[in-house]
Amino acid sequence: MAAAHREDEIRIRVRYSETDQMGTFYNSRALEWFECGRTELLRAIGIPYAAMEGRGVLLPLTEAHVEFLGRARYDDLLRMATRAAMAGRARLRFDHEIRHAEGGAAVARGWTVHAFADPTGSPVRPPAWFLEALDGGPPGATHGS
Amino acid sequence: MAAAHREDEIRIRVRYSETDQMGTFYNSRALEWFECGRTELLRAIGIPYAAMEGRGVLLPLTEAHVEFLGRARYDDLLRMATRAAMAGRARLRFDHEIRHAEGGAAVARGWTVHAFADPTGSPVRPPAWFLEALDGGPPGATHGS
Amino acid sequence: MAAAHREDEIRIRVRYSETDQMGTFYNSRALEWFECGRTELLRAIGIPYAAMEGRGVLLPLTEAHVEFLGRARYDDLLRMATRAAMAGRARLRFDHEIRHAEGGAAVARGWTVHAFADPTGSPVRPPAWFLEALDGGPPGATHGS
Amino acid sequence: MAAAHREDEIRIRVRYSETDQMGTFYNSRALEWFECGRTELLRAIGIPYAAMEGRGVLLPLTEAHVEFLGRARYDDLLRMATRAAMAGRARLRFDHEIRHAEGGAAVARGWTVHAFADPTGSPVRPPAWFLEALDGGPPGATHGS
Repeated sequence: MAAAHREDEIRIRVRYSETDQMGTFYNSRALEWFECGRTELLRAIGIPYAAMEGRGVLLPLTEAHVEFLGRARYDDLLRMATRAAMAGRARLRFDHEIRHAEGGAAVARGWTVHAFADPTGSPVRPPAWFLEALDGGPPGATHGS
Repeated sequence: MAAAHREDEIRIRVRYSETDQMGTFYNSRALEWFECGRTELLRAIGIPYAAMEGRGVLLPLTEAHVEFLGRARYDDLLRMATRAAMAGRARLRFDHEIRHAEGGAAVARGWTVHAFADPTGSPVRPPAWFLEALDGGPPGATHGS
Repeated sequence: MAAAHREDEIRIRVRYSETDQMGTFYNSRALEWFECGRTELLRAIGIPYAAMEGRGVLLPLTEAHVEFLGRARYDDLLRMATRAAMAGRARLRFDHEIRHAEGGAAVARGWTVHAFADPTGSPVRPPAWFLEALDGGPPGATHGS
Repeated sequence: MAAAHREDEIRIRVRYSETDQMGTFYNSRALEWFECGRTELLRAIGIPYAAMEGRGVLLPLTEAHVEFLGRARYDDLLRMATRAAMAGRARLRFDHEIRHAEGGAAVARGWTVHAFADPTGSPVRPPAWFLEALDGGPPGATHGS
């Protein structure tokens, strides 16, 4: 039985500040775009990350991985698919795939793994309200079988 | 009578992440470099900014100005002169000048103005220990006459 | 007679990567947001900056100024008004004002001045097609009288 | 028989611009610091990356991986060990380990894999002068046995 997961898609316009002298986006920007995907996916499932932090639950990264698949230049419009699922009992994983909005050529894909922590950085158990939202109904839910 | 001020100089190596597709540094990096100058000047006069924040005194920017005078490419070594002085009773001003370490060609110059605030953002009076350090002895002090 | 100018407004969502440990946006992000305003204004008047660069006309900054007026936290939605006008015969100026989308509290305002340059950085005369687009019809045009 | 590799160590001071509202460095900064390690290691073995680009050989990332092991705050002084080795015939790999300069507490570790490309992005064979420098003598060389 596959675990429940949630999906969302956003669009990103490459900023000039995100390019480098190689003429494509600088590598670390992929991690910043991944964050935009997390933010919008969590909002879409009803638990905006700002509200989570307000409730004292933070999601610090423990691991990140990026594969660079193609160039993207200033002002290119990209679409990023983001998918979230628990990775074991205490970790949350986001998978991301970035493509050109037009044509669909691959730009980057990767994932991040997050712990659940309180504001001091100490690990906490994933709250029930988080797991319910992640597991929950529309939109974008896909339940394993 | 000129006000007392303090001066310091640091070196900065342009990172690839700081370039853009125009092949020079992206404009906002100048403000990030100005921060490095503030950090080292405050350390040099005995009041590291991290320690100031630890004492509850923050220096949020109220204004910033940059003039862009020349190009600087990846891996170029720059030197930045920073000078600090009070601007009135409640504001601190830093002036910066960035040049190529070799040859001295101008890259950028500018200034930032800072309020004194507590961690909630409310204005506070500049602490006496700060004013004494700014006014204080060696190194780099220049007293007006 | 006031010079012709063009205006546009965009929305910006504060990214986590744009915050700092003071809990508001890091100061240099304002210049990165100003860039987003330039990009969308130039697109709105029919001369996307990527196309301008493709035609060999670059707009390097010669000067930038920012006033910091209020805090903005992660995930806050901001609106930025951008206005462009020539500043003399050889310079282009953008004015920006950033406010909270909800409530309208001021966050920052400022301006940048740009030269017209070829890809080697040498100054060029503002192209007629640029001046016509800047001066031109709808949307957002305001002609002086 | 282990492959030849080269090692280097640098120090990094955490900038305020590199922190986020969680009070530690923002995750993508690790990739920017990794770049500083690559830059100094390549300089140390006699082939500065700026000179490589000048000879038309670029090292675009194909993959990056980061493990986040501990917090680092504004102004913390870090040391980063970087090690370079070929990963097969056509790829270069850098491994990085970042620790607090004082005490040695782990901050992050990870690696990047790079292709060899010409300025248009097309793959090129690793130049002999690069392989010789990577394989070469002091300082920091460790030859397998």
